[in-house]
Amino acid sequence: MDKIEHIGIAVKNLDASNELFRKLFGAPAYKMEEVLSEGVTTSFFKSGPNKIELLAGTNENSPITKFIEKKGEGIHHIAFAVDDIVAEIARLKSEGFTVLNEVPKKGADNKLVAFLHPKSSNGVLVELCQEIRD
Amino acid sequence: MDKIEHIGIAVKNLDASNELFRKLFGAPAYKMEEVLSEGVTTSFFKSGPNKIELLAGTNENSPITKFIEKKGEGIHHIAFAVDDIVAEIARLKSEGFTVLNEVPKKGADNKLVAFLHPKSSNGVLVELCQEIRD
Repeated sequence: MDKIEHIGIAVKNLDASNELFRKLFGAPAYKMEEVLSEGVTTSFFKSGPNKIELLAGTNENSPITKFIEKKGEGIHHIAFAVDDIVAEIARLKSEGFTVLNEVPKKGADNKLVAFLHPKSSNGVLVELCQEIRD
Repeated sequence: MDKIEHIGIAVKNLDASNELFRKLFGAPAYKMEEVLSEGVTTSFFKSGPNKIELLAGTNENSPITKFIEKKGEGIHHIAFAVDDIVAEIARLKSEGFTVLNEVPKKGADNKLVAFLHPKSSNGVLVELCQEIRD
């Protein structure tokens, strides 16, 4: 786990939150992206070497819509950059973590991603992400 | 706001969580510190240029004890490094954020800190922190 790649924040209204985080960071989102398979639209802000990803659900089955219904808006996950996601999934399983995606899936921002169940990691939804190399 | 300085995670049992996060990061906490004024003990892990701070309450009035009672263990706050915390507090107030500490206070890790109310920042408890210069 090399560094925090990004922090994901669940929001209800992406336009309103883009404006709020522009004020917070003093600079606007540098890109937006829809991830159809997850039912989310996302926007990205830079914070030094890290990113902040805002996520809004696009339908009622989206994990983000469900998260907000249950817990309200707020921090949704921490994503750590890894070099070899398959090796890291194997290492974390052997250490007793519950891996939700044994086979990594395609996420936003040209990444392969896998999540750890928050129950096995102190209530924190941990995402592993590896840049997709062409 | 220069970068994510650290992410704070509320935990019930610091020893057990130190062991869990040692497994997650593949390396142990590099320091522990008690902040008497906040009623917390903390431990710090490195994640590349960032830190992860675990926080456990030391008494029932600790904000961390109360957070866990209400929401369970999990991500508690994001802290951003700032160069001039007084100027940043003024800037964020003028942008409409609710600043909980108009006068910054002494936090863990030799920092002056101030928090933004989560209601004004999309449910995210935002900490500003500035290194204390001698």
